[in-house]
Amino acid sequence: MTGAYGMIHVQSDIGRKQGDACDSITGLGVPRWLSRVCTTVEEGGVFPVSDVTVETSKPPIDIAAGIPDPTQLAYRQIRQAISQVLGDKARAFSALSYGDPLGERSLREWVAGFRNVDVDSVIITNGAMEAIFLSAIATLDPGDTVIVEHRSFPQAARIFSRLGMRLRSVPLTPQGVDIEVLNRLLESQRVDGNRIKAIYTIPNFQNPTGISASADTKRKLLELAEHHGIAVIADDPYHDLWFSQPPAEFPGEYRGTSGSPLLEIGSFSKWLGPGLRVGWLIADSAAVRKIAGYRLGVDGGPATLTQYALSQVLQGSWGNQWLAAERRFYAEKAKALLETLQCRLGEEIDVLPPQGGYFLWARLPEWFNSSAASVRRALAIQGINPVWGNVFTPPSEIDVGQPDDDARHCMRLSFAHVSKNRLEQVADRLRDALDEVRPSH
Amino acid sequence: MTGAYGMIHVQSDIGRKQGDACDSITGLGVPRWLSRVCTTVEEGGVFPVSDVTVETSKPPIDIAAGIPDPTQLAYRQIRQAISQVLGDKARAFSALSYGDPLGERSLREWVAGFRNVDVDSVIITNGAMEAIFLSAIATLDPGDTVIVEHRSFPQAARIFSRLGMRLRSVPLTPQGVDIEVLNRLLESQRVDGNRIKAIYTIPNFQNPTGISASADTKRKLLELAEHHGIAVIADDPYHDLWFSQPPAEFPGEYRGTSGSPLLEIGSFSKWLGPGLRVGWLIADSAAVRKIAGYRLGVDGGPATLTQYALSQVLQGSWGNQWLAAERRFYAEKAKALLETLQCRLGEEIDVLPPQGGYFLWARLPEWFNSSAASVRRALAIQGINPVWGNVFTPPSEIDVGQPDDDARHCMRLSFAHVSKNRLEQVADRLRDALDEVRPSH
Repeated sequence: MTGAYGMIHVQSDIGRKQGDACDSITGLGVPRWLSRVCTTVEEGGVFPVSDVTVETSKPPIDIAAGIPDPTQLAYRQIRQAISQVLGDKARAFSALSYGDPLGERSLREWVAGFRNVDVDSVIITNGAMEAIFLSAIATLDPGDTVIVEHRSFPQAARIFSRLGMRLRSVPLTPQGVDIEVLNRLLESQRVDGNRIKAIYTIPNFQNPTGISASADTKRKLLELAEHHGIAVIADDPYHDLWFSQPPAEFPGEYRGTSGSPLLEIGSFSKWLGPGLRVGWLIADSAAVRKIAGYRLGVDGGPATLTQYALSQVLQGSWGNQWLAAERRFYAEKAKALLETLQCRLGEEIDVLPPQGGYFLWARLPEWFNSSAASVRRALAIQGINPVWGNVFTPPSEIDVGQPDDDARHCMRLSFAHVSKNRLEQVADRLRDALDEVRPSH
Repeated sequence: MTGAYGMIHVQSDIGRKQGDACDSITGLGVPRWLSRVCTTVEEGGVFPVSDVTVETSKPPIDIAAGIPDPTQLAYRQIRQAISQVLGDKARAFSALSYGDPLGERSLREWVAGFRNVDVDSVIITNGAMEAIFLSAIATLDPGDTVIVEHRSFPQAARIFSRLGMRLRSVPLTPQGVDIEVLNRLLESQRVDGNRIKAIYTIPNFQNPTGISASADTKRKLLELAEHHGIAVIADDPYHDLWFSQPPAEFPGEYRGTSGSPLLEIGSFSKWLGPGLRVGWLIADSAAVRKIAGYRLGVDGGPATLTQYALSQVLQGSWGNQWLAAERRFYAEKAKALLETLQCRLGEEIDVLPPQGGYFLWARLPEWFNSSAASVRRALAIQGINPVWGNVFTPPSEIDVGQPDDDARHCMRLSFAHVSKNRLEQVADRLRDALDEVRPSH
């Protein structure tokens, strides 16, 4: 009998495939310089697809996706905002025409107020992704090295790799990136001539670990960057989805100021919907103007219409009220997942309680790891798809102070997308998967 | 006395500036590899800003901009479509979430039907610009050479140059790109080892000349490309805005078919609004899937919401009806500009009658050219801003069969954006400018 939900695929540890996906485009027969790290759509985007296919009667629960809860998007308000913009003779044409390469002025002003920086230091981007891409081309040449955290967002590593940049990684501590190791690495480049030009960090509610850098780490990171003349690309899409208190800000004298090495990336995707494709980058205003020039050679920027829609919907205090409700909502879901996991799995799970964002990072017993086909199969039968920890290990060169631990028995669980009710079933299913494969001794 | 419209700037022949705009980003202090051809926002985007500032009492008439007539956009219909999409429980969340890297399926299907190709050969892009960028990275490596037409869209040349690609140019004939010269150039590379990998062409209602390649030229171009193993990037945003008859299509066996060297770029920008940021690329389906992978390392693609809006508004035959009305509208404006120019300037102007698109290409007497400050000043006083022909001369290397003519006495006039009533004043103003500077002998 085929299970009620048919074939379920659960992501495995296949990792990033190289090889035939890198073949030249059929018929064009020419090399592809951006395909050094090569992933096709068939591989499922950011995460690898499964090698496990099972029949199961359990409805799948999606704990992989970093996408919002469908109940938390402002459908009615965005619809109304667009209706107002397109019904307003003063704005309708502008909203459907080419936009300012810096982004729609009124939206830049909102972001500047929201993030407490000068409007000239804000450029609107096609989601956080274009901001990462633009930050990369603004600060690194092909062949240059960028430092990433030793657990990091694989999509960012892919962007750097495709642009011909080399990766090195530094460990994370509970207070953020390990400043001592970073310092040693930067000092060593003076000797061996590496071209380290930037560090890419996810400073708050880190993806995947949930770690937020302390105020002290943030200051030291910037001081170190300034001393060594490297850029700090701080990808911060979860910043505003904090649970009990806002994360520490980078020191004010570095935020959008002249001569600062800091490029701060933010986004509306996680709280108002990624389909708007609107994010932002905050940096030295001279850098921002030049980055606006580069974007004219890439994609021209995000839709003017969605920028106008956001500017309209965010008038007054609506945005902060909406965010406040979302914070409570996601905090409750995080708590529900955390408590059920701790209750059902006890000693067998080690979880860092999430303080914000979308993800919970868990350490399972070493025998429950992504290398074991039996484990992947057990998860597939349970219809759950945690993302294995090793997926977040960047494909970097051998590094200073790198832990041996390859995170194959760690996993990232998203509490963002599925309902609280479904989330509360995850712990039981994970328990059942553990029971299925637990060694008998 | 200051003129009623104050200071008017008219674009001159300053051309593409190199130099201080290429300085490293303040504070980041690292080289910028994408800034080989460097243009800042201050330079006004695609076209250079003026060195001429005058006082004038004439209201400006914008004949530079390649943007739609404000009366021709479907404000009400797009507003309704978005309202329907966001009010529909089955689609609302998808429309605000991450989209398929290939683009929204229903919109791809519409494009496939509209352009008579297989849906698998269609990818939706962030305007035609992202399609040019993706075509470039899919077919060329840095250091490779791309051929462009010897009058071409400067923004495309900028994209190629920034990606480290070299440009060569071939002349245009009234039947499109000069196939004989192209053949000689491609044959010569076998000897001297140039790495020509692609040709970038604007096949219909060419920007700036208005030329459309004949069916014969289109076939020969593809046969030649196939023979020499180069890609044909055909940027065709004006395709659907023909006046009396549709342009010749590329031969069917090359359109979105396996092994074809053709990449065809289209866009909704010119008839439904560039602020939607939705265009498309049609190519070999294997190439399309790989290009979808590359875009995950760039910007993630256009807004999901505007793709859903277009898919909704284009249901049934609405799109074709709307286009038919736009064709008549722009044809009338083109005719009005053409007739007044011929009537008022007689022998002093040589115009190719536009058959579609947005632009009219005119040749003036040699003494009326962009090198003369008096000429630029006379145009500024008249409040008109034609784009000088030499702006469209690509910054290419010395070429086979290149005409001496540098187009400094040619100009591109856009009949797209301003009203027909205003357009009809352009000829008188141009006449007055000619009168002002005409040599006395």
